[in-house]
Amino acid sequence: MPTATVLAQHIADAPLIDQHVHGCWLSAGDRQRFENALNEANTEPITHSGFDSQLGFAVRAHCAPLLGLPKHVDAETYWERRSEHTETELARLFLREANVTDWLVDTGLADGVTDVQGFAELSGGRAHEVVRLEQVAEQAAQASGDYASAFEEILHRRAATAVGTKSILAYRGGFDGDLSEPSAQQVAGAAATWRDSGGVRLQDWVLLRFGLHHALRLGKPLQFHVGLGDRDCDLHKTNPLYLLDFLRQSGDTPIVLLHCYPYEREAGYLAQAFNNVYLDGGLSINFLGARGPAFIARLLELAPFDKIVYSSDGFGPAELHFLGATLWRKGIGRTLQEFVDAGDWSEADATRVVDLIARDTAARIYRV
Amino acid sequence: MPTATVLAQHIADAPLIDQHVHGCWLSAGDRQRFENALNEANTEPITHSGFDSQLGFAVRAHCAPLLGLPKHVDAETYWERRSEHTETELARLFLREANVTDWLVDTGLADGVTDVQGFAELSGGRAHEVVRLEQVAEQAAQASGDYASAFEEILHRRAATAVGTKSILAYRGGFDGDLSEPSAQQVAGAAATWRDSGGVRLQDWVLLRFGLHHALRLGKPLQFHVGLGDRDCDLHKTNPLYLLDFLRQSGDTPIVLLHCYPYEREAGYLAQAFNNVYLDGGLSINFLGARGPAFIARLLELAPFDKIVYSSDGFGPAELHFLGATLWRKGIGRTLQEFVDAGDWSEADATRVVDLIARDTAARIYRV
Amino acid sequence: MPTATVLAQHIADAPLIDQHVHGCWLSAGDRQRFENALNEANTEPITHSGFDSQLGFAVRAHCAPLLGLPKHVDAETYWERRSEHTETELARLFLREANVTDWLVDTGLADGVTDVQGFAELSGGRAHEVVRLEQVAEQAAQASGDYASAFEEILHRRAATAVGTKSILAYRGGFDGDLSEPSAQQVAGAAATWRDSGGVRLQDWVLLRFGLHHALRLGKPLQFHVGLGDRDCDLHKTNPLYLLDFLRQSGDTPIVLLHCYPYEREAGYLAQAFNNVYLDGGLSINFLGARGPAFIARLLELAPFDKIVYSSDGFGPAELHFLGATLWRKGIGRTLQEFVDAGDWSEADATRVVDLIARDTAARIYRV
Repeated sequence: MPTATVLAQHIADAPLIDQHVHGCWLSAGDRQRFENALNEANTEPITHSGFDSQLGFAVRAHCAPLLGLPKHVDAETYWERRSEHTETELARLFLREANVTDWLVDTGLADGVTDVQGFAELSGGRAHEVVRLEQVAEQAAQASGDYASAFEEILHRRAATAVGTKSILAYRGGFDGDLSEPSAQQVAGAAATWRDSGGVRLQDWVLLRFGLHHALRLGKPLQFHVGLGDRDCDLHKTNPLYLLDFLRQSGDTPIVLLHCYPYEREAGYLAQAFNNVYLDGGLSINFLGARGPAFIARLLELAPFDKIVYSSDGFGPAELHFLGATLWRKGIGRTLQEFVDAGDWSEADATRVVDLIARDTAARIYRV
Repeated sequence: MPTATVLAQHIADAPLIDQHVHGCWLSAGDRQRFENALNEANTEPITHSGFDSQLGFAVRAHCAPLLGLPKHVDAETYWERRSEHTETELARLFLREANVTDWLVDTGLADGVTDVQGFAELSGGRAHEVVRLEQVAEQAAQASGDYASAFEEILHRRAATAVGTKSILAYRGGFDGDLSEPSAQQVAGAAATWRDSGGVRLQDWVLLRFGLHHALRLGKPLQFHVGLGDRDCDLHKTNPLYLLDFLRQSGDTPIVLLHCYPYEREAGYLAQAFNNVYLDGGLSINFLGARGPAFIARLLELAPFDKIVYSSDGFGPAELHFLGATLWRKGIGRTLQEFVDAGDWSEADATRVVDLIARDTAARIYRV
Repeated sequence: MPTATVLAQHIADAPLIDQHVHGCWLSAGDRQRFENALNEANTEPITHSGFDSQLGFAVRAHCAPLLGLPKHVDAETYWERRSEHTETELARLFLREANVTDWLVDTGLADGVTDVQGFAELSGGRAHEVVRLEQVAEQAAQASGDYASAFEEILHRRAATAVGTKSILAYRGGFDGDLSEPSAQQVAGAAATWRDSGGVRLQDWVLLRFGLHHALRLGKPLQFHVGLGDRDCDLHKTNPLYLLDFLRQSGDTPIVLLHCYPYEREAGYLAQAFNNVYLDGGLSINFLGARGPAFIARLLELAPFDKIVYSSDGFGPAELHFLGATLWRKGIGRTLQEFVDAGDWSEADATRVVDLIARDTAARIYRV
């Protein structure tokens, strides 16, 4: 099938922009830490094997060969072989195999993982910062003087060298509330209350809204955690349709909906409904493993094709940064080949859409 | 595969009843108008190309040959070729190629598009009216005398020559509220308030409910816009499960759930749960393009097979009236062939279900 | 394909634990009863044919040969042939063909169907009881003395010989409310009110919550009806994500989410998020028929593979107890073979996961 081969080869070779990642582990840990890293939702030590999951099977299938092991090697052997390497060695290996030119790093989770600079060094690529809004708020709470001014000053200072912002509102109450901009008086009152209580872990709805509207004015792409995450969030309150009113007033600032499972159809609808809304399936693709192609196909329903971007959302084991790319390549290849084989798309359509998702759209909105 | 060919040929030849359409454009427009017509959800001028979507790719794949162009021709060439024809010429071409015997026309959107009579002339088929309830209400608001009497008189007069009614409650607040019948006193009070404010664009919940219960009493099939639509509606409030209480009191009047994406599973459940509920996937099939077969397969889950009907929901460019039929034929063919190949259905089962959806059920409930 | 054959043969031969069933009919009934049994959601006599559905087609495809009829035989002939047998004969035939070693019987629906003992006799397997909590409450309401003590006494007495408990909270108001444990005073007050009103059909939210927390303390697996059921429940209130707060306080007691359609993705998320949550797709698999494989594939997304169990949820016609097994074998076989063929799973992975779902996990949590 020479036709299939052209598309498949194009996908295999396509350099990626990974538009949402976290750091790789810096130091060794025990097997429980690793197995818990194969589980996204559970916040407690898991009591079954993290390997007994789509992600676990995908690690054994697709990461094992990079460690010189046979495909599908047993979990025990995989763990032992990986333990022979430092996390830095593993990061160097897996990051480089991902064929990613630019990593956009959410620095909101910084403990024990690589920072932006470390990312660039380990991967041999470029790395850029994405600033987490709730972290800016927590810094402003600890600063002296007026909260609003402090927030604005910190945001602008940090954003000057960053490519975008990120909100984890999903973890701080979800989306199903009023997201209009609060008044200066409301902000001052809420900030005083929060500072009095210590100013840690922002949960105040007024201040969360305040941060979002500042991010809109900043104009750099604003990423939202949507859907799949750990059980600290109420998953049903992260349905992105609850963002409708916010999006109706969001202007031109690009808004990128991350992860999205199981709300990828709703997110795709929003990407069609608003010129400034974008869609990403990172994290979900890794955790769905063999079911990733079906998910990727759903990302290609209502969203315009130049409104979809790629990420791995890797965090912790460097396998995840590599697997995100590998599973995306597998899944997009299978999905688009089916569209071509069915006579619905041309092969030229397919290769162009690959490039849009792999890097062109991200390069445009993040200016990298 | 002679077995496959019998089913495929049966589907290719099946005449359809398109049980929910709007008019085709009557006069020439610019490219922005056309590209926006390839986007359902966005109410603003789109800033990316409407061709970069499943629907856009489907137009290039399946409509281009009817204009003498190669399959998958580029968007620019497609637009230029289509511009060489009047909208009337295009309508005559695309409507006739759909192999539709009866068009059921929602006349609620009438500006600049063909009316019922024009539909019949352009297509060479029969055309019938579906009366939009909110339009009847707006006419009653402008009439003299008692609102309730005026509504009833207009509804009965218009419905005498119509085959059904349609509600866009989805766009006037959604389904998540009390839908019981209001009292005469409530109706009179709400009507007075509305008339005082000018009596345009019905948003009043009492009067919306009033109209629905009159449509139930009329007894002709009542269509509901469900799910996918433009961003003026809150998509999450159009989940048809919010209609449960209303359906529990809806008696024998056929109720047809239109479009339904992404709530097609919920709609299929309702079609199983109520003898008088029917399911339709029009609009969604067009906008899903290459992903249409997966959607059509979901329509065939819980809904009894004699409770599913066909429509295109075409509006504006006549390509949409043709594509609805073409993509439905493709999708139902692929889906049913898989059921047959897996040994779950006989080929006779499949051809019978095709006829039920293509026309038999619609002919029965609309009496056309 | 010798590789495919090993997995397929393994699945065909795998003995099952059917971890949630109801009894089979004991006496003859008319065709309306049978056709209504092919419809889950409708609580009224259905006016179309129950055979015109995925389940109806599956009965004709997969049950007909056991009655000596050709595959896909017409509905009329199927009904006539089945009418030549007593329900007991049919149960003996279909239960034995299911290759189920253990039946876990919810005895909450007991009128006119086999009890636990009868199940064992007819099937030649073992049968165990699952105690319905709302039935225990209704027994406690009729008992003398303190309600809470009576509930506790009945629950412990009945559970001594049972393997688990079951809640139909979905049918008594749904999950979207406070599910914390009520105080003794609240329970006493609610019980007095309920007893005064006759003590039938428990709907009181305080007493429903009381029962759930007692079941948690009992420690045996607690099953929840989730999703698909008849229209007496508000389907949208059975989204298992509304159970999040309850699950956060549920400790180690295994909690099994039953049926789950169309919330299987949400249920899979919960199975990943909580060490004690399990997932089951019974009932849905039967009603989805030819669409069952796609559903089974969705069960294999986020849920860890040792957190998924098998059931048929058969009730009434013994065909359903057999079909559950047959359609599950077909669906899991097709799904896992695709994973293997795509290079994402090894065949050894697939056969191990089959055993986990077929019986190993159920044997572990129910200790059968």
